[in-house]
Amino acid sequence: MMNYKIAIVPGDGIGPEVIGQTIRVLDKVGEKFGHKFEYTEVLAGGCAIDASGTCLPQETIDTCRASDAVLLGAVGGWKWDTLPGSERPEMALLGLRKELGLFANLRPALLFEDLAEACPLKAEIVEGGLDIVVVRELTGGIYFGEKGTKDTDMGLAAYDVEQYAEEEVRRIAEVAFDMAMKRNKKVTSVDKANVLESSRLWRRVVAEVGEKYPEVELNNLYIDNAAMQMVRNPKQFDVIVTSNIFGDILSDEASMITGSIGMLPSASLATGNFGMYEPVHGSAPDIAGKDMANPMATILSSAMMLRYTFGLSDEADAVESAVKKVLADGYRTSDIAKEGENAIGTVKTGDLIVEAI
Amino acid sequence: MMNYKIAIVPGDGIGPEVIGQTIRVLDKVGEKFGHKFEYTEVLAGGCAIDASGTCLPQETIDTCRASDAVLLGAVGGWKWDTLPGSERPEMALLGLRKELGLFANLRPALLFEDLAEACPLKAEIVEGGLDIVVVRELTGGIYFGEKGTKDTDMGLAAYDVEQYAEEEVRRIAEVAFDMAMKRNKKVTSVDKANVLESSRLWRRVVAEVGEKYPEVELNNLYIDNAAMQMVRNPKQFDVIVTSNIFGDILSDEASMITGSIGMLPSASLATGNFGMYEPVHGSAPDIAGKDMANPMATILSSAMMLRYTFGLSDEADAVESAVKKVLADGYRTSDIAKEGENAIGTVKTGDLIVEAI
Ligand SMILES: CC(C)[C@H](C(=O)O)[C@@H](O)C(=O)O
Ligand SMILES: CC(C)[C@H](C(=O)O)[C@@H](O)C(=O)O
Repeated sequence: MMNYKIAIVPGDGIGPEVIGQTIRVLDKVGEKFGHKFEYTEVLAGGCAIDASGTCLPQETIDTCRASDAVLLGAVGGWKWDTLPGSERPEMALLGLRKELGLFANLRPALLFEDLAEACPLKAEIVEGGLDIVVVRELTGGIYFGEKGTKDTDMGLAAYDVEQYAEEEVRRIAEVAFDMAMKRNKKVTSVDKANVLESSRLWRRVVAEVGEKYPEVELNNLYIDNAAMQMVRNPKQFDVIVTSNIFGDILSDEASMITGSIGMLPSASLATGNFGMYEPVHGSAPDIAGKDMANPMATILSSAMMLRYTFGLSDEADAVESAVKKVLADGYRTSDIAKEGENAIGTVKTGDLIVEAI
Repeated sequence: MMNYKIAIVPGDGIGPEVIGQTIRVLDKVGEKFGHKFEYTEVLAGGCAIDASGTCLPQETIDTCRASDAVLLGAVGGWKWDTLPGSERPEMALLGLRKELGLFANLRPALLFEDLAEACPLKAEIVEGGLDIVVVRELTGGIYFGEKGTKDTDMGLAAYDVEQYAEEEVRRIAEVAFDMAMKRNKKVTSVDKANVLESSRLWRRVVAEVGEKYPEVELNNLYIDNAAMQMVRNPKQFDVIVTSNIFGDILSDEASMITGSIGMLPSASLATGNFGMYEPVHGSAPDIAGKDMANPMATILSSAMMLRYTFGLSDEADAVESAVKKVLADGYRTSDIAKEGENAIGTVKTGDLIVEAI
């Protein structure tokens, strides 16, 4: 029996609730397939600020490093909204990414057949479904470049440096091409090479990596055009690879056009098999503690963990199928229920998914 | 009789054709309202590269500077697509913006009632229409910051500096608030203040400017959230103000959700009344010279010129009403015609608009 060590970061708002149901699902998977998942709970985000004055205590980092994978609920909330941006709970995410070397963020944007109506785009644009993965570089670029202030003749100025080195681009491009090989063999690299020096380097290195994948079709798009194409004709995309800041924007836009942001998982991977898994949605403090949150995105994130970090694809398939079955059976939490439809709660959703496995 | 000097930059592809019809419209306005428009044609873009080896000859800059306003068609095309990004025809735009001090880009995103069907968003999301103006900073930020390459332990790196000074933010914020006062009194400032130092300065200065406009409601959104809201609920926006790079992305996304990018004008303003006016669409080399291009976006750009640079609002209204009338009468160029509908050509569109004035 394999023993898998998972650091659990419930975080704030609905985080603990959705994590709670996910642990039940993992336990069921363990029982059915004969694995042992061992959980260590740690603090990050607003609750960590309250408990220790910092959003990312060293102990949290240490525990995550000592684990095989990290499962995170959500961080942030109104309570800490008066703090300056740089001291907010969300900064724990940036810290975890950097400290754990999570350079590759995978953001699938899937249209769930049973929820297709929620899509904000016209039916004919998304006919036949959507299945995009945005591969976002997560530990470089303007997020982590030098920043500061200086005096200029137009007054005080503040600056941030967008920078990419060849090796940083190479490894994220490899993740994207590897992913495309398992999917529809199409990579779209998004940059602003007509303006940015860093994008020109990006584009060159992505092309070099692409030569090792002759079966994969590589396209380059400028970010402004990509933001438009995502609305006009998102079905043209398979795997999108892009920088940290462009990926932040484009992956959120892609999530939104699925119409079911409350359903979407994400993975943030390091070299090797280590990864952090979390839902795309936020901490939703307005519904926290009310047994209203949709745990599916977190449960689907745990399926990504099973697949990518633990290499357990049958187990991942089982979780994904169970979620789909519950949807197909017509059960909905309030975020995805149609007007007038009866919504079920967080725990009941967990019950049904556990049962379906 | 007032004499207005306009530098004309037809550019490439369909540029000369759409400019041709716009000049006819302006002449008609002059005739009807008693003004004289004086045109000086100059080269920029691909045609300038072919003629002189540079996409933006000094003579073009000088002529623009000596004029009251600039009217531009479109630049770029396949023919020059093999040139490195930094030598492409489009670089003429960056040069003109910088040389002419065009720091404020106004990009209206309007849903034309008669073309509402073309909108990619579901009807209920845009019910009642859309009327957004994106105010994009155009001569600062990462477009014009220091850029270069350096060696790092991850190989050669390339960098670009995003930088904003207080005075740069102040003047663009003022444009946005002034605009909001004439509209629905709502400004949304878009930044990434949770990550970028330059965004934190941006947010602070915008708030300071906002204090001088107590009637205007100011909201701040992160760019990732803004890119989502634009799809989810674009009607929440009135005036959006943002940096050069975020504005590039967001204004294009906003244009696309109107469904009629071929209809949208833009203005790029300097201090005082000087401005450059151009359609949002590109040079469309595939239909160049075929009398197929839609001149309406350029004609509407000239209406913005009448309004903002020349202060001729009755004249601007006349042009805008004429365009609307032609649409309401059911005439469409092929880009906006429905399948099976008979499309009219560029010149015929010009005829009808001239007639309607
Ligand atoms: C909270 C914020 C710093 C973060 C980011 O910009 O990366 C978030 O938007 C995300 O995408 O995970
Ligand atoms: C051509 C390019 C440099 C330009 C920009 O990014 O500003 C274009 O996308 C625009 O928005 O006018």
